[in-house]
Amino acid sequence: MLNRVRSAVAHLVSSGGAPPSRPKSPDLPNATSAPPVAPPQAPRSPPARAGSGGAAPARTVEARASFSRPTFLQLSPGGLRRADDHAGRAVQSPPDTGRRLPWSTGYAEVINAGKSRHNEDQACCEVVYVEGRRSVSGAPREPSRGQGLCFYYWGLFDGHAGGGAAEMASRLLHRHIREQLKDLVEILQDPLPPPLCLPSTPGAPGSSDSSQLVGPQSCWSSQKEVTHESLVVGAIENAFQLMDEQMARERRGHQVEGGCCALVVVYLLGKVYVANAGDSRAIIVRNGEIIPMSREFTPETERQRLQLLGFLKPELLGGEFTHLEFPRRVQPKELGQRMLYRDQNMTGWAYKKIELEDLRFPLVCGEGKKARVMATIGVTRGLGDHNLRVCSSTLPIKPFLSCFPEVRVYDLTQYEHCPDDVLVLGTDGLWDVTSDCEVAATVDRVLSAYEPNDPSRYTALAQALVLGARGTPRDRGWRLPNNKLGSGDDISVFVIPLGGPGSYS
Amino acid sequence: MLNRVRSAVAHLVSSGGAPPSRPKSPDLPNATSAPPVAPPQAPRSPPARAGSGGAAPARTVEARASFSRPTFLQLSPGGLRRADDHAGRAVQSPPDTGRRLPWSTGYAEVINAGKSRHNEDQACCEVVYVEGRRSVSGAPREPSRGQGLCFYYWGLFDGHAGGGAAEMASRLLHRHIREQLKDLVEILQDPLPPPLCLPSTPGAPGSSDSSQLVGPQSCWSSQKEVTHESLVVGAIENAFQLMDEQMARERRGHQVEGGCCALVVVYLLGKVYVANAGDSRAIIVRNGEIIPMSREFTPETERQRLQLLGFLKPELLGGEFTHLEFPRRVQPKELGQRMLYRDQNMTGWAYKKIELEDLRFPLVCGEGKKARVMATIGVTRGLGDHNLRVCSSTLPIKPFLSCFPEVRVYDLTQYEHCPDDVLVLGTDGLWDVTSDCEVAATVDRVLSAYEPNDPSRYTALAQALVLGARGTPRDRGWRLPNNKLGSGDDISVFVIPLGGPGSYS
Repeated sequence: MLNRVRSAVAHLVSSGGAPPSRPKSPDLPNATSAPPVAPPQAPRSPPARAGSGGAAPARTVEARASFSRPTFLQLSPGGLRRADDHAGRAVQSPPDTGRRLPWSTGYAEVINAGKSRHNEDQACCEVVYVEGRRSVSGAPREPSRGQGLCFYYWGLFDGHAGGGAAEMASRLLHRHIREQLKDLVEILQDPLPPPLCLPSTPGAPGSSDSSQLVGPQSCWSSQKEVTHESLVVGAIENAFQLMDEQMARERRGHQVEGGCCALVVVYLLGKVYVANAGDSRAIIVRNGEIIPMSREFTPETERQRLQLLGFLKPELLGGEFTHLEFPRRVQPKELGQRMLYRDQNMTGWAYKKIELEDLRFPLVCGEGKKARVMATIGVTRGLGDHNLRVCSSTLPIKPFLSCFPEVRVYDLTQYEHCPDDVLVLGTDGLWDVTSDCEVAATVDRVLSAYEPNDPSRYTALAQALVLGARGTPRDRGWRLPNNKLGSGDDISVFVIPLGGPGSYS
Repeated sequence: MLNRVRSAVAHLVSSGGAPPSRPKSPDLPNATSAPPVAPPQAPRSPPARAGSGGAAPARTVEARASFSRPTFLQLSPGGLRRADDHAGRAVQSPPDTGRRLPWSTGYAEVINAGKSRHNEDQACCEVVYVEGRRSVSGAPREPSRGQGLCFYYWGLFDGHAGGGAAEMASRLLHRHIREQLKDLVEILQDPLPPPLCLPSTPGAPGSSDSSQLVGPQSCWSSQKEVTHESLVVGAIENAFQLMDEQMARERRGHQVEGGCCALVVVYLLGKVYVANAGDSRAIIVRNGEIIPMSREFTPETERQRLQLLGFLKPELLGGEFTHLEFPRRVQPKELGQRMLYRDQNMTGWAYKKIELEDLRFPLVCGEGKKARVMATIGVTRGLGDHNLRVCSSTLPIKPFLSCFPEVRVYDLTQYEHCPDDVLVLGTDGLWDVTSDCEVAATVDRVLSAYEPNDPSRYTALAQALVLGARGTPRDRGWRLPNNKLGSGDDISVFVIPLGGPGSYS
């Protein structure tokens, strides 16, 4: 492992910034290729989080196979082997005969062309019931209030440096979201604005006095209006952080090696929340129009955040990296000359005199799919990566990575959706070779070939998207019809019809 | 002074976040109201900046009057008094009879309604010639190359806590830009991509070997492409920083009290660069369509940047502030209860248990025009403010303020502009009471009343915009036709016709 990263860095040093091989993942072995370690029989329940007021939700109790695919694929042992075959790259979807995915969701996936031993993408699609923790006022629940809530949930997790983090996130992240929502069950169903302040111990003796609920119309003359929607956003954000903290705690006992991008959709009370941490992407195709629902977080898009952190906390650079950006690696013989640079405050470029510390490796280097933080990792948000270090040093990379998603909200009730309006989620294996417009064209082409009420049309669309990105084997590679190379990465796609569960489930 | 800030903070403490009076400025006395201190006879020349390769540009040699208006207004002593009259609030424009502003620019301004002793806005409109410092290759300049460059320049500076910073910036910022561009004169006129590396001492003996110019097609296999445009952006960004540093050096000798927002436009080689640091605004109105050319930097829009800095550098909070945001001030009796909060990573809200340190005053508080950093200042980018401290403590606020502008570029050659297409710049006095759409409507209404070739039409438009935001005195206030209050702030407006200097100058 160290040798592989060392050789990557040596190449970077000699070629000016472009790592040689894998587009995104650090060159670390797959956790899944190591023999699974049996988890403790009574796994620690994560300690309650200060301030969040709840016990942590989810436990990792099952001993896991060395690799796995989403359970909703209902793969037999033979099917699992075919799904794991780099040579055939058969597209996988839930069986026509079995129980359909909630909301008539379409799904398809394909393994990479040899980039990693197993498919490091994972997926989850669930309907999750949230039971209110207790009445927030502490009063006994009235029959008409305090009913639980349901949310629909879709998650795509693109793993790197092993499948452990993606696999864990696909099993547990929605449970963290459920846990965060438990406190909000009553509040979200109450048309009044959320109370700014809640009693400390809901339901505890003495806390049933509703005068402790400081409502938004209290004596304070100025206070921010907090919406129900922003509470759901906050719940999703904190769930990502708690998931990441759980990975940190359990990384040893449970082989949570590596990290993963996470793209998650929550449908709750009429609104679609799209949370993205990484370089997967979500778009809505509505009446042929494209509505971006996420943006990618990479060393290029987050350059200034990374540089600022390196500037404010130079100890995180370990004397090995410079927070300045140069158009290429600076050579020792250029000391004293003036070279183009950018610092954390700049979007433009200027010349600066090269000094000794500018010869350090840049914190952010490379372009496009080859851009890297600390010469190692090509995504800057996601879950896991707690063990990730710069090779040949003990310098941790995790401080530069953020586990927080950006959450965008789409109000499903504001528009009359037709059966051809869809939300498409894809890992970067799709988007590396497929533009938003090409996806919209495929949506139109495939869906118009099916009856509007044929529930298999969304699976057919997901398959078409995966096939279109994978290509066919030809001329020693997987090639697209235009003869360009298809994606050699794992590819996973959800297609969510926006007509809603009432229409299709 | 301290008493006024103390009373403001006392009010904040008692009313939960809303400071009482002035919308943006900290309650500090005007520098201009103090007797001017004679500057040293031989002001220090700012030391050369490491890496920028040039001597600092501009010196402040003049002893200044206690207040001033832009020289292009050509105000007589009587006119200066009228411009300084809070009761009459006469709109000021350059005289019809004098030399017009470059590019037929329209300009109008009006003093505030008593908010500060003088008009703290300042403006500048210049054509600036940049002589190349030397041939970048060190070779003797050929007659056909290395010609100087001209840029057109407009600047609006909205001062707070005194007029010193705005006045200084209006006199000197364009000189800093000129100085930054000197090194680029040849490069910007060369159709080839900019060289990544320049010899250390341009023109020095031994540096004339052009092989030292490492071109973009060198042996490095991967390097970023740097455009001419991004060099101009970088030059403007660094000029802002150098201006700010000069203010820091000279703040004592020259009464550079207070700070200012800076909105600057540079036209160079076919492109318009709009640089904004503060809460002024620029929009293009083109064929009736509105194109935003800036965004505002306030405690609300920069909340997460400010919170992150407070989180990473808690010493900057001095034990007096918390980096967390609450919807209103937390009360001691709420200790142990759970209140809504946001940290630096969140866009949504969640509940947290109130602990002792949450009782500190929030780093960012208030909403809209009342939002404040450290209960003091309502803008988060700009120049100056080096002396600004939290009242009743020595805690400096400057570390949270950024002097860097956001620069947007508009390619004037990509569109055939008609005489009614304009770029409108305004200080917040305009935008507080006027929407982008209302400005576009006024553009249409006023310009259609003038012949397209009448050069006074842009001044008439600027005046109409200022008048429309000021209103007329009625019912004990300045009121708009809809009877709402007009802006009591200083209001300054530039109208730049986009037909270009060839058409109008």
